[in-house]
Amino acid sequence: MENFEFYNPTRIIFGKEAEKKIGKILEKDDVERVLFVYGKSSIKETGLYDRIVKALKKEGIEFIEHGGVKPNPVLSHTREGIEKAKKHKVDAILAVGGGSVIDEGKTIAVGTKTDKDVWDFFKRNKEIKKALPIYVILTLAATGSEMNGFAVITNEETQEKLSISSEHIFPRVSILNPELTFTVSAKYQAYAAVDAIAHVIEHYFSGSYCPNLQNRFVEGLIKTVMETTEIILKEQKNYNARAEFMWAATLALNGLAKLGIKGGSFPNHMIAHSLGAIYDLPHGACLSIVIPAWMKWYQEKNLIQFERFAKEIFGVNTATEGVFQLKEWFRKIGAPVSLKEAGISIGEIDRIVDNAYNIAKVWQMEKDYTKEVLTEIIKNAND
Amino acid sequence: MENFEFYNPTRIIFGKEAEKKIGKILEKDDVERVLFVYGKSSIKETGLYDRIVKALKKEGIEFIEHGGVKPNPVLSHTREGIEKAKKHKVDAILAVGGGSVIDEGKTIAVGTKTDKDVWDFFKRNKEIKKALPIYVILTLAATGSEMNGFAVITNEETQEKLSISSEHIFPRVSILNPELTFTVSAKYQAYAAVDAIAHVIEHYFSGSYCPNLQNRFVEGLIKTVMETTEIILKEQKNYNARAEFMWAATLALNGLAKLGIKGGSFPNHMIAHSLGAIYDLPHGACLSIVIPAWMKWYQEKNLIQFERFAKEIFGVNTATEGVFQLKEWFRKIGAPVSLKEAGISIGEIDRIVDNAYNIAKVWQMEKDYTKEVLTEIIKNAND
Repeated sequence: MENFEFYNPTRIIFGKEAEKKIGKILEKDDVERVLFVYGKSSIKETGLYDRIVKALKKEGIEFIEHGGVKPNPVLSHTREGIEKAKKHKVDAILAVGGGSVIDEGKTIAVGTKTDKDVWDFFKRNKEIKKALPIYVILTLAATGSEMNGFAVITNEETQEKLSISSEHIFPRVSILNPELTFTVSAKYQAYAAVDAIAHVIEHYFSGSYCPNLQNRFVEGLIKTVMETTEIILKEQKNYNARAEFMWAATLALNGLAKLGIKGGSFPNHMIAHSLGAIYDLPHGACLSIVIPAWMKWYQEKNLIQFERFAKEIFGVNTATEGVFQLKEWFRKIGAPVSLKEAGISIGEIDRIVDNAYNIAKVWQMEKDYTKEVLTEIIKNAND
Repeated sequence: MENFEFYNPTRIIFGKEAEKKIGKILEKDDVERVLFVYGKSSIKETGLYDRIVKALKKEGIEFIEHGGVKPNPVLSHTREGIEKAKKHKVDAILAVGGGSVIDEGKTIAVGTKTDKDVWDFFKRNKEIKKALPIYVILTLAATGSEMNGFAVITNEETQEKLSISSEHIFPRVSILNPELTFTVSAKYQAYAAVDAIAHVIEHYFSGSYCPNLQNRFVEGLIKTVMETTEIILKEQKNYNARAEFMWAATLALNGLAKLGIKGGSFPNHMIAHSLGAIYDLPHGACLSIVIPAWMKWYQEKNLIQFERFAKEIFGVNTATEGVFQLKEWFRKIGAPVSLKEAGISIGEIDRIVDNAYNIAKVWQMEKDYTKEVLTEIIKNAND
């Protein structure tokens, strides 16, 4: 078992109508003015916006709105948020949405507390020393951002999709009400399932030693994600399935799943981020294209673990069959499993490889993921 | 899935030689003087004491010693610690040991910040509002106290074994080096395994609804505890087995295992605390006597879950057979499975029932656990 450090101070408030508590939570923490970050107008249509405004007003908490966050949140809009937060001297960020909204909110929290350009932190040129406190109301379970210290932003000018990591951007409190995810469409539920599975299999497969304790934890999460997604796709408002999925997605990337694993990295996310940056595809769709392609390339390098996966998750005997079954499951739930299905021509391969290779350099993975290797993996994703 | 709140701010530093970091950790937190709480002199024999003293001195951190904590930590010794901590105006508690040392350390941390009698908090007459920061170096993995907000103390005058629960007594930092558990004897490893299993099965069995996500998490922990204990009993210094066991025992009672379960309580601990208070038996030994007896009494009330347990853990088909197999496994690893084996006469039953009933009242469980019920359960534990 590898040495590790684990720290996760986010308070989770999970359950029905939990969002009504947001006013009191902020008031207790002496927050007087928040930047209220959200995405599309859908939170207004569902009535969530009104419930939050009511809860804030009841405790006399002022809010400055910053709506319009994109599904792949972009740097220019984030910079606008930083300007607003500075101008209005907010005490905290209130992010209401899924991973994109939370990630933009976290980045604004960092950018507000510095005079430097926030993108420098993504280029890993600077260490994050402080951030505004972040409060979250989650409306789409998938990325785990509600209980971790990561954020991903796309610089649309340079077509770079990069991440930051810091203890300062763990949300102070995250409110998880499964009912708020009842309106998540079948397509986005499928992408969310792929994302949650991706989070737990990266280290599970790419590490050179995975303790049985972690194997069991990861496999339990995958089984839960698959089982609940199949229920949700049939019964959109099944509370228990939405709830188990929501908590499983949070656990998938709150730091627990990779503890004690020797080595391991995030190669599938690296390549998926490139597809996201270039084609502005949903993150889960990028992952469902990349994962089977990466697995096909990687399986021989960790055959015992791939065989274990095949047996535990699908009850089949070979690594190859396990990879096939996962790809088929992605297909079954409606996630794209090839570049072709996403409308991307294999003629674009050099552009994708170049972009992914740039991320590999920022993540210090370019020795394992050379352009040749990336080309081989992306070719596997053609069909 | 039930509504829940989850918060666990303890920082875990896990791995080889991790205890050497204690000086720097305290220095970074501006701690200048600690109460150094420990149990027997064994930490001196193994050299751990010297390594800690060296790490503290290097950073100029003063320490006041408070050794001699008993395996069932007692109130009188805890009160002595509170007096020392107040007299020497320590900034923090450094607890080096297993659950007993940590629990006494936590109680001293509470008692030092109040003028009232610390036992009042155990009688649930008062709410804990503050405590000194607590730092832990764990030498026996079992109770989970290194990553939770609980502490259990025995009032030896009244023969009451009671607990406190507060966010203020989460350790600030807990250092978990599996090598420090190499010297744990076979007997205490067995007790530790029983304790870790007990922590996850209480809600798993006694709750009226357990999400599959939690079922899988709990069963994964039980399998890991059993598998690693069997290795440890053969190979005392198997690092990976000690490490997986250590982290599994921490996860078993850091709050995660019971999330989302409807209802549920701690009946086995309630009765085991009585045996501990009256006979000063090791906690794990009390639990291995109580658990099969409680399961035999309870199984019909939650038959589906008991059948699931039997199948998942032991590959057998009936609830009764699952209970039998667990009892046999306890016996196999050397834990007592009856009052008789622990040298307790069934003639003592009224005394045990009275003591357990008193705890039931403090824990507000006396409606379900009447004296008649307790008598029935304890009779099951006779042989």
